[in-house]
Amino acid sequence: MGGAVGMAARRSGVATRVTGVGDKPETIAAARALGAVDEATLDLREGVKDADLVVLAVPVSMIPEIASAVIPLCQEGCVITDLGSSKAAVVAAVDQLAAKAKNGVHFVGSHPIAGSEKNGIEAAGEVNLQGAPCVLTPTPTTDHEAYRRVDDFWKALGMKTMRLSAEEHDAVLARSSHLPHILSYALVNLQTERSLTLSGSGLRDMSRLSGSDVALWTDIVTQNAHEISKLLKECVQELGELAEEIEQLSHPGTPAAEAARERLFRFFADAKQRHDKRYAQAAPAEPDVDEEEKSPESIRSRDTQIMT
Amino acid sequence: MGGAVGMAARRSGVATRVTGVGDKPETIAAARALGAVDEATLDLREGVKDADLVVLAVPVSMIPEIASAVIPLCQEGCVITDLGSSKAAVVAAVDQLAAKAKNGVHFVGSHPIAGSEKNGIEAAGEVNLQGAPCVLTPTPTTDHEAYRRVDDFWKALGMKTMRLSAEEHDAVLARSSHLPHILSYALVNLQTERSLTLSGSGLRDMSRLSGSDVALWTDIVTQNAHEISKLLKECVQELGELAEEIEQLSHPGTPAAEAARERLFRFFADAKQRHDKRYAQAAPAEPDVDEEEKSPESIRSRDTQIMT
Repeated sequence: MGGAVGMAARRSGVATRVTGVGDKPETIAAARALGAVDEATLDLREGVKDADLVVLAVPVSMIPEIASAVIPLCQEGCVITDLGSSKAAVVAAVDQLAAKAKNGVHFVGSHPIAGSEKNGIEAAGEVNLQGAPCVLTPTPTTDHEAYRRVDDFWKALGMKTMRLSAEEHDAVLARSSHLPHILSYALVNLQTERSLTLSGSGLRDMSRLSGSDVALWTDIVTQNAHEISKLLKECVQELGELAEEIEQLSHPGTPAAEAARERLFRFFADAKQRHDKRYAQAAPAEPDVDEEEKSPESIRSRDTQIMT
Repeated sequence: MGGAVGMAARRSGVATRVTGVGDKPETIAAARALGAVDEATLDLREGVKDADLVVLAVPVSMIPEIASAVIPLCQEGCVITDLGSSKAAVVAAVDQLAAKAKNGVHFVGSHPIAGSEKNGIEAAGEVNLQGAPCVLTPTPTTDHEAYRRVDDFWKALGMKTMRLSAEEHDAVLARSSHLPHILSYALVNLQTERSLTLSGSGLRDMSRLSGSDVALWTDIVTQNAHEISKLLKECVQELGELAEEIEQLSHPGTPAAEAARERLFRFFADAKQRHDKRYAQAAPAEPDVDEEEKSPESIRSRDTQIMT
């Protein structure tokens, strides 16, 4: 994702210069070759000292540690953001670090929702930020000017920004992203050799997310464990009821079976209707994020007011 | 799927003539326009009277009824097969009908595993049978010559055939196809307006199957209700344990959390390994169906022996 952001930033012209900081020579060589950076370095101090905006593109569990290394190296007034898929723990930790900093550095949490199950600089070209949603997660202490700069940055990259509290973000993303990942991992683990062989495009699509980076996803689930376990229990309850419903169907001809069939049909029809509304017309990567963007009042209020 | 089979049959040259039978003028006009048939008719008698092989491409719940209409119209020795996604109920019903027929008509159940969530003749061009698996479900009373003809037909279309009992088929497909569909429908029904908006390609892929035809899938689940409800309970059990595991993670720093994190990592890693083995190298539509095909003994045994 860091590579994708670098590419988009260079393409958009929003930055005079994009500097990549990597921990391996291969990574920075690949970033240069892909055109994801104007220059790249292994030296953190060198990489961030002149930056107006620093984007931390590391796994969520490493963000506080990296932020704590980056903050003292930044120039006065530098703004730091991140790309973490879970926010509450990250934002609390980095906000505290930034508040203690002597050099007026500010932090604003970001989550551009435009991933790929692939990881690393090689996948950078496959990520399309254009039209995709990006959540910003300010807190009551977030600097307004810093918020505006981060918001402007993502907008310049073509993203549709939205502000949520970190906690709201984590509850919503548990549903739209973390649960789908867990179901994908679980579904693949429920397969047998034979069922994997006798499967088609349905299982292939449903298992794609299980190809995601294991350490990264263990991190995300750990960071958002409370929301995810709560939601997974809701899902278990739902599927348990569905299993009972379907068991009724195995006694055909009974009124219970007829009623169960009716309910199953409606359950499927509800899902299909929501699916078709979300995906049928719209291009996949271009959801209609927030209609309020069109209202001048809300644009004004977004510039001056921080939601929590 | 009927259209896709017609197209592939014409392309392969396995049939001298492909005749489509439809219940609506629009359908047969579209089948002609797509090149899925050499000729098409609304008249069932006209469509099947000279056929050597009849492929019933109707929803599973309609197969016995259509078979019962088709059988008396067929010429001596005609072989009938189907494309049903659940087999035990269909095969039992149609076998009985064929056994009672006076004209030596035979039935062999088939399930070419190469669907699309789209339905109808319009989707015919998107289905790729080449290299995809096709399960045949003979019974102890299945005619050997009829089995061979159906097996040859799918092989001529480039499919990798495999024989299973109808019951084995239904247990395997519950896992590889029916469960993924149910998880997709359930996942979409667990979304909120906001989570649908703040979602990326992960949810999009995981919800694709929920765009499938509602009546068709209510039928399939009804026909295979016993296997599916049993498997869904297994899945519920698994996800319930996972929810408990993830709940442990929300108390970081405890030994229980550390152990849970370790187990979660292994659970994800197991899934990723199976995913990568199945999908990483192979082209999506070309699974390596059965290695036994390469052994001359098993080819011989497959030609002479009916597994049940």
